Amino acid sequence: MREKKIYFDNSATTRPYDKVIEDMVNVYASNYGNPSSLHTMGINSEKLIKEARRSIGNELGVKASEVYFTSGGTESNSLAVEGYINANLRKGNHLVTSKTEHPSVLEIFKYYENNGFTVDYINVDHKGMVDLEELDKKISDKTLMASIMMVNNETGTIQPIEKISRIVKKNNRDTVLHVDAVQAFGKIRTNPGISGIDMMSLSSHKIHGPKGTGALFVKKGFRLNPILIGGGQEASMRSGTENVPGISGFGIAAGICFQNIEDTWEKVSILKGKLKNGLLENLDCIEISPEHGSPYILNMAFEGVKAEVLLHHLAGENIFVSTGSACSSRKNIRSHVLSSMGTKNSYIDSAIRFSFSIFNELEEVNITLGAIKNIVPKIKTKR
Amino acid sequence: MREKKIYFDNSATTRPYDKVIEDMVNVYASNYGNPSSLHTMGINSEKLIKEARRSIGNELGVKASEVYFTSGGTESNSLAVEGYINANLRKGNHLVTSKTEHPSVLEIFKYYENNGFTVDYINVDHKGMVDLEELDKKISDKTLMASIMMVNNETGTIQPIEKISRIVKKNNRDTVLHVDAVQAFGKIRTNPGISGIDMMSLSSHKIHGPKGTGALFVKKGFRLNPILIGGGQEASMRSGTENVPGISGFGIAAGICFQNIEDTWEKVSILKGKLKNGLLENLDCIEISPEHGSPYILNMAFEGVKAEVLLHHLAGENIFVSTGSACSSRKNIRSHVLSSMGTKNSYIDSAIRFSFSIFNELEEVNITLGAIKNIVPKIKTKR
Repeated sequence: MREKKIYFDNSATTRPYDKVIEDMVNVYASNYGNPSSLHTMGINSEKLIKEARRSIGNELGVKASEVYFTSGGTESNSLAVEGYINANLRKGNHLVTSKTEHPSVLEIFKYYENNGFTVDYINVDHKGMVDLEELDKKISDKTLMASIMMVNNETGTIQPIEKISRIVKKNNRDTVLHVDAVQAFGKIRTNPGISGIDMMSLSSHKIHGPKGTGALFVKKGFRLNPILIGGGQEASMRSGTENVPGISGFGIAAGICFQNIEDTWEKVSILKGKLKNGLLENLDCIEISPEHGSPYILNMAFEGVKAEVLLHHLAGENIFVSTGSACSSRKNIRSHVLSSMGTKNSYIDSAIRFSFSIFNELEEVNITLGAIKNIVPKIKTKR
Repeated sequence: MREKKIYFDNSATTRPYDKVIEDMVNVYASNYGNPSSLHTMGINSEKLIKEARRSIGNELGVKASEVYFTSGGTESNSLAVEGYINANLRKGNHLVTSKTEHPSVLEIFKYYENNGFTVDYINVDHKGMVDLEELDKKISDKTLMASIMMVNNETGTIQPIEKISRIVKKNNRDTVLHVDAVQAFGKIRTNPGISGIDMMSLSSHKIHGPKGTGALFVKKGFRLNPILIGGGQEASMRSGTENVPGISGFGIAAGICFQNIEDTWEKVSILKGKLKNGLLENLDCIEISPEHGSPYILNMAFEGVKAEVLLHHLAGENIFVSTGSACSSRKNIRSHVLSSMGTKNSYIDSAIRFSFSIFNELEEVNITLGAIKNIVPKIKTKR
């Protein structure tokens, strides 16, 4: 077996950049002060956080003070949605989201639905695009918040966030728009100001930063109730000793990603194209992901093949892919994303997500193509 | 100036063990899979979490399945207190805690006090010991939860948790006892089963593990509402991609701490004794921390000296100490812990916390003594 791993599961998590690891080691070993400490070591730690905040603020074109660090994408989504709703209970009891959001958003909306709120889950078409007409109809003067993700984690579908923001604000300029940008940040240039985004969730470990760190952009002036209270860190928006090495590593990862954002887009576009075409030409399969989705994600269905079986065979050859999202893959339930898109069950059950990063190479695509061509005939059920 | 730092602020945060950093680098570089991924890389990451869970469970004498990983002590406290209260709203509307808890506990109790609950904040004596008679009187059949910390972060006061548990359970066997053990874990051997603890909060970065990781012990059978929902990680008790390197590093740090727990206790006891006696013999000062408190913490007041000024002079000589806790030191408010103990303001304003770790040496105590003897006369206000 080839010793070198072929990692095509970059939407689940990524390998940190060497520079990120080096930086974190340095912070762990020499700069371990608590940012709340008054002395020089505390101040040095605080500086690292400030730098990371500035780095991420710069990349987004927002003020550093509008960026709050959290423990990850899930916490960012939770802080945004719960934090805003709880702080603004009197402003409305209607919420809007889409059917293909990440569970960390959907589950919160379900919670509020069970607790006195009306929630509309907007439908998507067969490529995962939010129905903008339906959205237009649903936003009313009672709508407190809309939450729509930028890039879907299973299909790479890119929502037209600027359009969505215009529709939302046209119907109710007080409706706050939250965007889960976990799969978009560092890959698509986004300026919340230009796009009309009020809050935006980011994750570090999806962009070659450390796990355990994320951030939430909150437009100045918006009031949120914190989820974690206590020491008053992050301007009282998120208490708890700051994960300084994690935050610092996140800032560095963001810097590298944005520096190479166009080149990486180009690179993964080529990889995705080659893999897709190679599969379509040689195998009985169809593309689930949309033609014009994120080049970082390719979702293909191999009808008659059990996705899990193919995944394990590939893993046996040191090739790592995913069925659905990492979060739901262990639960043995059909992807709510693909179901919402109207994908038929035989496709859902045979769908494999390939997700790319700057670390992937064309040779890996060729090896993977060869492996799949070899495996599929052996595991395909006869009809 | 000596290049080598003398770090006596170990209650704020600690330097990670080299072995912890090495392990994390290894995980970051080679074992970066998402534990939710079905493939081998996911399974390997899951194994690391399992190992850490087993390590911490073993040290506590509890089942691995009773240990849940969080992003740190603040989140653990929040999950325990809010999680239990929200899941058991009908069982009672009375809560009990002490006046000297960490803000991450106190602030939550204040929140519930403002939202329909009755909260009793038990008084402490001049050494910070919880008034057990008052506790006995307050626990009633309406008491849903009591939360008492094991070791105070500012004074090192050790509460008699077993006695406290007996008092709580004698008055109401259904009252759940949560213990914030952030400053105790890895320093004092504690078995929640023996001590009668139902939930216990732990932090990694206080025991030479990485920042951004903590854990909560929850006795089997207790129902908690998660704070973070979504992907269903940590048996749905805490969603969000697991911070695998952090969790792994935490497990390793816990292992090392417990392996050396008696030796380290002995070592820091000697350091604390030498520093205390040296200060008492040579300077006009008094001990705020209790005689029989944690050997890891020494709190001394230098009347007539502004603590912050002394702290900065010491930092100028690469000696790092604290005034009050790290969390509150930036806020320029008097320590609620020392105030609750009835410490007079002139002592509170001149109180310095020295907190020790296995990395400290006797020579550092001697250098610090010399520095303080040198600095204090220069900065003391004349009366």
